[in-house]
Amino acid sequence: MEKLTVALLGGGVVGAEVARTLLTRSDALAARVGARLELTGVLVRDTTKERDGIPRELVTTDAEAVVAGADIVVELMGGIEPARTHILDALASGASVVTANKALLAQHFPELITAAEDAGVRIEYEAAVAGAIPIVRPLSVSLAGDRIERVMGIVNGTTNYILDQMSKEGWDFDAALATAQELGYAEADPTADVEGLDAAAKAAIIASLAFQVPVAMDDVHVEGISSVSADMIETAAAQGFTIKLLAICERIDNADGTESVSARVYPALIRDDHPLASVSGAFNAVFVEAENAGSLMFYGQGAGGAPTSSAVMGDLVSVARRRVLGGRGQIAQQVRESGDILPVARITTRYQMTLEVHDRPGVLLRVAEIVAAEGVSIELVQQTRLESEDEDASPRAKLVIATHSAVESALAATVDSLAASDVVESVKSVLRIEGA
Amino acid sequence: MEKLTVALLGGGVVGAEVARTLLTRSDALAARVGARLELTGVLVRDTTKERDGIPRELVTTDAEAVVAGADIVVELMGGIEPARTHILDALASGASVVTANKALLAQHFPELITAAEDAGVRIEYEAAVAGAIPIVRPLSVSLAGDRIERVMGIVNGTTNYILDQMSKEGWDFDAALATAQELGYAEADPTADVEGLDAAAKAAIIASLAFQVPVAMDDVHVEGISSVSADMIETAAAQGFTIKLLAICERIDNADGTESVSARVYPALIRDDHPLASVSGAFNAVFVEAENAGSLMFYGQGAGGAPTSSAVMGDLVSVARRRVLGGRGQIAQQVRESGDILPVARITTRYQMTLEVHDRPGVLLRVAEIVAAEGVSIELVQQTRLESEDEDASPRAKLVIATHSAVESALAATVDSLAASDVVESVKSVLRIEGA
Ligand SMILES: NC(=O)c1ccc[n+]([C@@H]2O[C@H](COP(=O)([O-])OP(=O)(O)OC[C@H]3O[C@@H](n4cnc5c(N)ncnc54)[C@H](OP(=O)(O)O)[C@@H]3O)[C@@H](O)[C@H]2O)c1
Ligand SMILES: NC(=O)c1ccc[n+]([C@@H]2O[C@H](COP(=O)([O-])OP(=O)(O)OC[C@H]3O[C@@H](n4cnc5c(N)ncnc54)[C@H](OP(=O)(O)O)[C@@H]3O)[C@@H](O)[C@H]2O)c1
Repeated sequence: MEKLTVALLGGGVVGAEVARTLLTRSDALAARVGARLELTGVLVRDTTKERDGIPRELVTTDAEAVVAGADIVVELMGGIEPARTHILDALASGASVVTANKALLAQHFPELITAAEDAGVRIEYEAAVAGAIPIVRPLSVSLAGDRIERVMGIVNGTTNYILDQMSKEGWDFDAALATAQELGYAEADPTADVEGLDAAAKAAIIASLAFQVPVAMDDVHVEGISSVSADMIETAAAQGFTIKLLAICERIDNADGTESVSARVYPALIRDDHPLASVSGAFNAVFVEAENAGSLMFYGQGAGGAPTSSAVMGDLVSVARRRVLGGRGQIAQQVRESGDILPVARITTRYQMTLEVHDRPGVLLRVAEIVAAEGVSIELVQQTRLESEDEDASPRAKLVIATHSAVESALAATVDSLAASDVVESVKSVLRIEGA
Repeated sequence: MEKLTVALLGGGVVGAEVARTLLTRSDALAARVGARLELTGVLVRDTTKERDGIPRELVTTDAEAVVAGADIVVELMGGIEPARTHILDALASGASVVTANKALLAQHFPELITAAEDAGVRIEYEAAVAGAIPIVRPLSVSLAGDRIERVMGIVNGTTNYILDQMSKEGWDFDAALATAQELGYAEADPTADVEGLDAAAKAAIIASLAFQVPVAMDDVHVEGISSVSADMIETAAAQGFTIKLLAICERIDNADGTESVSARVYPALIRDDHPLASVSGAFNAVFVEAENAGSLMFYGQGAGGAPTSSAVMGDLVSVARRRVLGGRGQIAQQVRESGDILPVARITTRYQMTLEVHDRPGVLLRVAEIVAAEGVSIELVQQTRLESEDEDASPRAKLVIATHSAVESALAATVDSLAASDVVESVKSVLRIEGA
């Protein structure tokens, strides 16, 4: 039986699982691939560390030696450099590449794809988007003959866990974050997760794949969840909504017949009966709408060593099979050089605004006038009197307003006008409503 | 640009959608494939029929002529013959094949795969398992480096719709079936759906794919939903369960170190918080458990012309790309000639039994003795006094018993012993509990 050599760049959380699988399941893998997969080396920084699942003699700090002669290079080190250079070197040498590196792909997607095409080999990255959940292959292969209209994903387990705890326990953000950190669901420095940057990297990859337009991380509008309060979750729940951090990638038909793309990440309200609403804890899910297929959803674990290694191994078997079968690796995809990426101000969405207003006759009318003046129409208003301890204080009410669909800039202008008006005491929160 | 010729066998519900897509999206498809896809003919029985989306001059009854010279043959006619012969001819002539024919695959899977391997071309069948939901590719590629333990699917929309209506409206089976027929969710002859045969064909394909053992339709244990009553649904709901028709494919480790496979279809109870429980209406979903990936779920539309055509087009683009790239089509999978397929009597599951008993002291103890005598242990018993109009009738109670896991044969023996005992008036229903 033919033999294929595999080099691992990185022997950390995911790398150690991949090494273990390669070594312990080698017969089953050989049957699947039609060739034996031989692990020839694992690149690390520190060769003295004990690594469960990786024999000491395979560990090295010599990147060139480990890449040289490998048929398949699996990059699991993370970060931009030196990962990018190693991958480009590997592709140029004719090796197939598998990577789980979302940060790198979100910045250098077109460069990496082009390098693979030029070399006639394959690069696969299923694990970079949603861990164990197969989503790259469904988007790029299964739906290749359909027209993907929109993808909405819960692609960050840390923030989903935090929002879930806030909603179940009534906790505020800080308490939920602290618990998530204690339980290992959030890192000591939670910025990348909590501020939506991890989700934005994944949104960039999803948009590039779904619409075949290069979308980089910087093109993605990002808002995190640190401003989500227990109150906002309660108000949402009272109206039948759940707050989720969503990565949204949309294809937008412009009036002039051209097409734009939007990629954005923000906490949004989705109806409780939407399939994404019941995705709880650290689970991820990606909801896809396509012209013919209709609605699809993919659900599973978006992170963790073992789940992520499952996706990496799927890619590894796939590129290995392809080497056994022969033929070139990738079709040069006639990806547009750059797509028209819509600024968030031009997207269409719905707002839910929570206002504190002076509770006196005519306030609702005045609010309705201000909203209408911006060309926005109201779907629903709910007014609740606010009790005050201070008997002399002027009476207040809480107004929750859900709008119909409108352009973001008009919605934002509406909020500004309301904030500036004399009947509105304060704008308590503004959230978008998605998936309606 | 290179050109690939495509022949369609069948121009019905799915075929017409595929033809329409090929003709109306040809530029986008060419960009995706790297070659133009040219539809050269559509095989039908009746050339006089008006067919939306298919130009009359492409329609023919000449099977040989339409297959001859086609690079890709898409079989959407259904049934075993002549579909099987046409596919084998196409493969032998070097054409790649796409099919949505679950009936054919459930009976001739190994023959078709071997024929494709021998010819060095590909055969794809994503649409045959769950319509638009990508499941074949996730099971066979994405999870190829993992170890799939179990697949549980809601793979028949008609029965899911009927059970859903029964549960939401409190209807009995006949009323729900009649409504489903009126609304076009069930066919005039609903046997294949209602008796679980359609689900069994899909279970056979899923098991073959997931465990690489040839499993045929006849190897699948099948029970349909016609015996599910409104009462059973109500009893289930009271205990936090939903009744779903499940296709279950399991890998089972035997005591002697060998492995067996089980494939079965029956209505079963699943807990309301299981992701499959909320799959409603005509939607399908496939829940997968794998060693590394953990739990995954795939959700979407399992039937209908447009959704099914989406999956067919994905396969079509995939086989077409592969022809452009060159190389052989399939790896000879070292599939065992025949797998050890476990008879249903030997599977492990849990029972929920609903009994009508004489309501007198000691009955519960007697029932507990009978169950224990079969080596089965009880997880939960709920006793409700039944009111009777007849004052002279001896008092009755309803007993709902949920067991712990046990071998099916022991569970079945327990039911027999209970039915034969003097304290049990009648066994009202027996359902399995899955997904715990
Ligand atoms: N963990 C997850 O749940 C998850 C999920 C999806 C995707 N990913 C992606 O998978 C990749 C790996 O993640 P991970 O969690 O396994 O990371 P990790 O535990 O930090 O492991 C990184 C590995 O790469 C090695 N490494 C890093 N920089 C290096 C350098 N400059 N030279 C040589 N070796 C270097 C490290 O060596 P030392 O061990 O010597 O430090 C370590 O073995 C990342 O791109 C990540 O985004 C991870
Ligand atoms: N419909 C769905 O929702 C769905 C979902 C998943 C999978 N599938 C599968 O897709 C396949 C097609 O389904 P469908 O619903 O499109 O079926 P359909 O509407 O009954 O269409 C069948 C087509 O095949 C032609 N045909 C049948 N037997 C023929 C023969 N002996 N010679 C020549 N032509 C013949 C018919 O010709 P005439 O038009 O002249 O009768 C018709 O055009 C089946 O295998 C089915 O199981 C369907």
